[in-house]
Amino acid sequence: MQTQELTSQIKKKSSFLCIGLDVDLNKFPKHLLKEEDPIFAFNKAIIDATHHLCVAYKPNTAFYEAYGLKGWQALEKTISYLNENYPEQFTIADAKRGDIGNTSSMYAKAFFEDLEFDSVTVAPYMGKDSVEPFLEFKDKHTILLALTSNQGAFDFQTKTVDGKPLYQHVLETTKQYKNAEQLMYVVGATKAEYLSEIREIIPNNFLLVPGVGAQGGSLKEVAKYGMNDDVGLLVNSSRGIIYASNDEDFAEASAEKAKDLQQQMHTALDQYFGHAN
Amino acid sequence: MQTQELTSQIKKKSSFLCIGLDVDLNKFPKHLLKEEDPIFAFNKAIIDATHHLCVAYKPNTAFYEAYGLKGWQALEKTISYLNENYPEQFTIADAKRGDIGNTSSMYAKAFFEDLEFDSVTVAPYMGKDSVEPFLEFKDKHTILLALTSNQGAFDFQTKTVDGKPLYQHVLETTKQYKNAEQLMYVVGATKAEYLSEIREIIPNNFLLVPGVGAQGGSLKEVAKYGMNDDVGLLVNSSRGIIYASNDEDFAEASAEKAKDLQQQMHTALDQYFGHAN
Repeated sequence: MQTQELTSQIKKKSSFLCIGLDVDLNKFPKHLLKEEDPIFAFNKAIIDATHHLCVAYKPNTAFYEAYGLKGWQALEKTISYLNENYPEQFTIADAKRGDIGNTSSMYAKAFFEDLEFDSVTVAPYMGKDSVEPFLEFKDKHTILLALTSNQGAFDFQTKTVDGKPLYQHVLETTKQYKNAEQLMYVVGATKAEYLSEIREIIPNNFLLVPGVGAQGGSLKEVAKYGMNDDVGLLVNSSRGIIYASNDEDFAEASAEKAKDLQQQMHTALDQYFGHAN
Repeated sequence: MQTQELTSQIKKKSSFLCIGLDVDLNKFPKHLLKEEDPIFAFNKAIIDATHHLCVAYKPNTAFYEAYGLKGWQALEKTISYLNENYPEQFTIADAKRGDIGNTSSMYAKAFFEDLEFDSVTVAPYMGKDSVEPFLEFKDKHTILLALTSNQGAFDFQTKTVDGKPLYQHVLETTKQYKNAEQLMYVVGATKAEYLSEIREIIPNNFLLVPGVGAQGGSLKEVAKYGMNDDVGLLVNSSRGIIYASNDEDFAEASAEKAKDLQQQMHTALDQYFGHAN
């Protein structure tokens, strides 16, 4: 998917919501555990109930790998289900991969070709030859960790390198990489006050923003400082939506939570683009 | 496995060799492709032929994920085979993972509990709360990227933070983490001249050193600057060993290449510890 298409979906649905599919059997409604594949059954129900309220889905691979082969199988079924039934959704493999050149190519092949995700999250620590192999895939996007939503972000990401914080150095360096127009960046909602400076460095790239809700970030602040003329934002919520209820009504409950966020996003979009949009 | 046991294995075998199982069907001997599970068949043959010459095996997860479910299954079979038949081998999941707290716990569970690896490689960019969940697992090791062997390492790892390179900052910060005695670090052999300074900061931790052979690093330099009283080194070779031949003799050919490195390691150990060891 190209970013123009993503922007158009956002405007159509008045939503820049991304729903994180962080599956956890311990938090699932009990009746689902009797299913042959509870993970896929859970995801399918959530997706069917929420797809009109969001523009992206983001399974975090950790939660699937933790269930071994069955987890990996459920991930395959989930992405196939999305691509077949909701091809307008932007799909993100939240995998935070990255390795030396030929190895990054293997990861890119795994997520872009075999699983057919639209994008994958990548850690920048190993630099150019670990990131560019992902950028070689046309119409696919590489979402680099820039400033993450957790406390540990202050260990290295905000340390001063050549007069500016490391995460800014990451933005400035990586925007020179080959096919950098296919880059997006992770910026935590818990650090929304950094967004103005970030937008000065990368005015055009999409930002994937976790940390709204459970982690305490403010959607209003994120929209105020992060939105651009292509919208340029995907705001993710995982637990706050998918675990809204652990009863038989879990899918409807998740849709209600998604609707809450979508309505706030509608307001934010109206404020930026005007009511005509 | 505890590090004392690893040191004892190294001294017993006069080898600190780690063999990287970076599987690639395009490089396999043709006759193996007829097997039901060519990846496992390849790994099994390599392991059976080389186990007496090395102390560790390191499958890089990218090469397995690239083959989807079958790849993941072959990874499971490989680690089970190692744990059942060669429990004295130190096993490394070269996965370069790392995520916010509860998600890192899921990765740790996947690699330490389900797959029963002794260790996993982790990227440090997200800081403390992304690394400590791995360190909570007793007798398991977390191998942090410090200074990698690729050219891209110069993008961020060697940039100056508070008067010293970022990778040194990573070493100094992470050695304060809880259970830091279970940390090991990746330092590329292509940057052996940095090892003296690294040993000043972390005199005791084991180092996993890729980049000897194919990437041009020198084993002699690595041993000279990196060895400590517990040996403290695992030097990895992947392609140089496992793809020594793509004919029916591939396993014997890999053992010959492993033997070459093992003999150089024998000499290096003799030089450090004396012939009596």
